[in-house]
Amino acid sequence: MAKKIAVLMTDLVEDIEYTSPVNALESQGHDVEVIAPEAGEVEGKKGGKFKADKSISEVNSDDYDAVYVPGGFSPDGLRGDENDRFSKFAKHFIEQNKPTFAICHGPQLLVDTDLLSGRNLTAVKNVRKDLENAGAKVHDQEVTVCSNLVTSRTPDDLDAFNGEIMKQLA
Amino acid sequence: MAKKIAVLMTDLVEDIEYTSPVNALESQGHDVEVIAPEAGEVEGKKGGKFKADKSISEVNSDDYDAVYVPGGFSPDGLRGDENDRFSKFAKHFIEQNKPTFAICHGPQLLVDTDLLSGRNLTAVKNVRKDLENAGAKVHDQEVTVCSNLVTSRTPDDLDAFNGEIMKQLA
Repeated sequence: MAKKIAVLMTDLVEDIEYTSPVNALESQGHDVEVIAPEAGEVEGKKGGKFKADKSISEVNSDDYDAVYVPGGFSPDGLRGDENDRFSKFAKHFIEQNKPTFAICHGPQLLVDTDLLSGRNLTAVKNVRKDLENAGAKVHDQEVTVCSNLVTSRTPDDLDAFNGEIMKQLA
Repeated sequence: MAKKIAVLMTDLVEDIEYTSPVNALESQGHDVEVIAPEAGEVEGKKGGKFKADKSISEVNSDDYDAVYVPGGFSPDGLRGDENDRFSKFAKHFIEQNKPTFAICHGPQLLVDTDLLSGRNLTAVKNVRKDLENAGAKVHDQEVTVCSNLVTSRTPDDLDAFNGEIMKQLA
């Protein structure tokens, strides 16, 4: 059955961390919506231009089955939101045990949910200390699955990451 | 008396967070050395080209009187060092109560020292949760002075930041 997936991202997203999972999701018939600070366009770190379907101001987390946070410098930008709208949006999925996906720097945004204590995660080396300090158990592996929470380290892990995403949505 | 200050930075440093404090320091006769992953050149987020005087592999923290970590995406890059050489270098200054300066995303690198518990700091909004989770008391103010530790939030705070830097080195 097709699921509706919210992708939270802004400028300087790591291009392939957007395109690879989204292509995989859409090829399985899932419905992906990009949610950004403003609807319009998001510019990737490598120069890609991606459509932002909705502004965070116009969406409700109840309307989505899963959430995905790609990496690059986008998660840092989302954390700068004055009203923490992106971490509040993501919080719903962790609280409700809905599928929650993040790769590379993506888990940075999840730190702001205050819900990582005791959870198993991986991420790019640069932010692992922040996950540990948030109470997470951090692993250096291509993909870490912790119930509804699926995380990976870098673009090199995308095959394993996409595989676990699909299992969560099956 | 002239002091020797180590500036820890890599590509995507916030240009003015390098140039403004360094100009202030040099105008007072202090000796500034840029320490990067490799000696050569560092490229700023805004396109500036800055000389990297030394590689982190060839320096000893004992040889410097103070350390400065400018912001941008540079601190994130420094945290990616496989051997954590930049956070180990910075750790010396906090342990020895030598002047330690960081602005914007700069405090991210200090998180990796595991020495922020109980310290008063500020930083750009995006990383404040990480400082709290590291045990710091986080303030939303233009400059926070905690004994030898001086931190600021953004380029708008540079005047106040530079002023406190100079007091520490007087």
